[in-house]
Amino acid sequence: MAAFNDLVPAGSLFATLRGANRAAWDSYVEHDFVRQLGAGTLPEKAFRFYLIQDYLFLIQFARAYALAAYKADTLEDARQAARSMSIILDDEMSLHVKFCAGWGLTIDDILAVPEAPQCMAYTRYVLEAGQAGDILDLLVALAPCVVGYAEVANRLVASGATKLDGNPYRAWIEAYAGEEYQKVAAAAVAQLDRLYLRRAGPGRDPALVKLFGGASRLEADFWQMGLDAA
Amino acid sequence: MAAFNDLVPAGSLFATLRGANRAAWDSYVEHDFVRQLGAGTLPEKAFRFYLIQDYLFLIQFARAYALAAYKADTLEDARQAARSMSIILDDEMSLHVKFCAGWGLTIDDILAVPEAPQCMAYTRYVLEAGQAGDILDLLVALAPCVVGYAEVANRLVASGATKLDGNPYRAWIEAYAGEEYQKVAAAAVAQLDRLYLRRAGPGRDPALVKLFGGASRLEADFWQMGLDAA
Amino acid sequence: MAAFNDLVPAGSLFATLRGANRAAWDSYVEHDFVRQLGAGTLPEKAFRFYLIQDYLFLIQFARAYALAAYKADTLEDARQAARSMSIILDDEMSLHVKFCAGWGLTIDDILAVPEAPQCMAYTRYVLEAGQAGDILDLLVALAPCVVGYAEVANRLVASGATKLDGNPYRAWIEAYAGEEYQKVAAAAVAQLDRLYLRRAGPGRDPALVKLFGGASRLEADFWQMGLDAA
Amino acid sequence: MAAFNDLVPAGSLFATLRGANRAAWDSYVEHDFVRQLGAGTLPEKAFRFYLIQDYLFLIQFARAYALAAYKADTLEDARQAARSMSIILDDEMSLHVKFCAGWGLTIDDILAVPEAPQCMAYTRYVLEAGQAGDILDLLVALAPCVVGYAEVANRLVASGATKLDGNPYRAWIEAYAGEEYQKVAAAAVAQLDRLYLRRAGPGRDPALVKLFGGASRLEADFWQMGLDAA
Repeated sequence: MAAFNDLVPAGSLFATLRGANRAAWDSYVEHDFVRQLGAGTLPEKAFRFYLIQDYLFLIQFARAYALAAYKADTLEDARQAARSMSIILDDEMSLHVKFCAGWGLTIDDILAVPEAPQCMAYTRYVLEAGQAGDILDLLVALAPCVVGYAEVANRLVASGATKLDGNPYRAWIEAYAGEEYQKVAAAAVAQLDRLYLRRAGPGRDPALVKLFGGASRLEADFWQMGLDAA
Repeated sequence: MAAFNDLVPAGSLFATLRGANRAAWDSYVEHDFVRQLGAGTLPEKAFRFYLIQDYLFLIQFARAYALAAYKADTLEDARQAARSMSIILDDEMSLHVKFCAGWGLTIDDILAVPEAPQCMAYTRYVLEAGQAGDILDLLVALAPCVVGYAEVANRLVASGATKLDGNPYRAWIEAYAGEEYQKVAAAAVAQLDRLYLRRAGPGRDPALVKLFGGASRLEADFWQMGLDAA
Repeated sequence: MAAFNDLVPAGSLFATLRGANRAAWDSYVEHDFVRQLGAGTLPEKAFRFYLIQDYLFLIQFARAYALAAYKADTLEDARQAARSMSIILDDEMSLHVKFCAGWGLTIDDILAVPEAPQCMAYTRYVLEAGQAGDILDLLVALAPCVVGYAEVANRLVASGATKLDGNPYRAWIEAYAGEEYQKVAAAAVAQLDRLYLRRAGPGRDPALVKLFGGASRLEADFWQMGLDAA
Repeated sequence: MAAFNDLVPAGSLFATLRGANRAAWDSYVEHDFVRQLGAGTLPEKAFRFYLIQDYLFLIQFARAYALAAYKADTLEDARQAARSMSIILDDEMSLHVKFCAGWGLTIDDILAVPEAPQCMAYTRYVLEAGQAGDILDLLVALAPCVVGYAEVANRLVASGATKLDGNPYRAWIEAYAGEEYQKVAAAAVAQLDRLYLRRAGPGRDPALVKLFGGASRLEADFWQMGLDAA
């Protein structure tokens, strides 16, 4: 891995899952969409398609955190899930709304767009894994998104190929590289370790690895969807 | 019904469900536990047992609203559910904590108490009805609690048998008769009508009536549990 | 424990969960209802009330196995759950229908009986634990019923206080002590071990112990419900 | 629509949902994959990729019927769901196993193939819609598959462009056009009407139309996945 600021501690469950899915993970965090976004060369059409779908995606992810609050074994985990839900509904979505406003799009315009299959695939995969399994399954399936975006932003910030000045996507990069989002991602990494201790054991690793890998591949498909739209 | 201030509009789904379960409903809202609470004659032991179980109950009810946020079809319903969850976690539970502090009990003391069967019965009935069915089933099963407590408080305030001065349970009565809680209950009544229009029809009434009746009977059992503890 | 034929192998997860809930377990498997049933002295009214509720109970338990088939990670577990569902729907319920026919009751008569709170409490506790958690949670919550009935029957068969000749409940005892049911129970014990290896670890034991204890207590309440009806 | 034998009665819920999603529906039932399959010109590679994914798909669909059995309000619906589950596990999958055996592939070979995104998308969409909603939502999301395959087969049988003699896919066509499968599809259509009467009303139509449309589009994507593999 490049010398970016890795928020994932060695020995954590996240590190294990990422390491066991290296190819899928790299296809996601080093996707061309991301490189072009960092270089500022990503066609606006690609970003716009992506961002609108990402808004629809976040509605499903808010639902996923609501499900996590329902599935939580402790008040601490319930409150962490409730916080994540409100960060999505109140903060993260407002980034999207601002970008969309810049293109003359309202929230109703966004909500009128049909979900792309890539959006349906990833979000329903996560939600269904969470309903079929327990809160650990749910949060493992969510982790490539939550933590991956923080890693993608850190990689972009560390990369010589990234150009921030005049980059139309700078606000996106800085939002996810920002301290607030990085803390959310680090808390998600720590929560996975807590839940693993409380609910799992080594015999469960293959299933968690597979679940994480599936989600990582669907994340890569999501970037590709953006490129294909341009 | 007595001349209390009825927050439930005639013709609403709630009015239909309550009317079709009159005996079960009255056994709940006119329960001896309630009368004694209004008269200030309820043994402290009964109230204390009830209140501790009600705290454990609210943990499950916060989970029920998390589930409702997951099951919501619209952002409006998701936000209403999220608000209800935080009202429970932040406001309603603090009433309990205050009462318990008066008895020298901490939150950890409460959490160490095993759930009574009556608490398990009601809460799991609601949650499971919500998982098996849709958001309307879930909110219908929740309604006897949310709206019933507002009605119980209004009935107490209107009753000549109620004594507020020197009543050790005055804070309880005033919390649920207070404007803030009454608004929450009225919003729950209105939400049921909205959801019924969007998801149901007359053929579903028998199932909703049965669900509501089951929840009302389990609420009455919950008061009885308090009396039996004294 | 008495010298009955214990189908539970030492060192199995079931043995651990039972051992950690000894008092709750004994209150269930050595309940007066059971003793009187073995001695043939149980009032018919108690048994009849119990059996009708147990029929309503089995409808919910068939649903629980359907949920287990949905939650299964492997085709093997899915098929075991599907088999359990059809054993309930096709075999176990027919025992009840025969007893009820002897009292002049049809299936429609049974289905018209309202569920007792003790039936609602136990069944919804199991189903909801299964939805909130994973297949291991679900099957641990089910285990006191599935395996407990086999143990109860084995204890009765081994007990000097049991009288089979002329015992009106002999068919009940022999059904659960019979080879077919004992195999089902033994398979459930083995499946728990398999699932534990695949999904859990020692950190999860306290939660599983608590879940199993709750279910055991609700089983004891279910017998008591029968006695209280006489 | 062409003069094929339409198993869907006018005025049924299915007819309404299909009519309101005409373009999506036609893109599915008249997909090139289907035409080539009927003409016997579909590349084996396309069919093979499709069929292996369809096997993985059926595992998820068996889970969906297990979920439907859990969510059923009546014993009749629970038994219909259980029957569908066993038809999938016992009959439908054996068609796939036979085809695969012809290519020298065992069940373990099939299970080692990763699910394609199109398979994940459709199956998780259905399962999650079923968990978030009620049994009607679940069965509406399943209907394009269950009923659509019967319609596709009927269209192929009625079409002049279809060639059965020497068609390597003849067994596929005849399985779905056969009386047994047609009965399953007709029963699914009738069950939707029953459930709609019991659980829904006109206000729910837009949501059901949207759900059905989403599933139809994901079915079309599933055929396309086969073509793209050739």
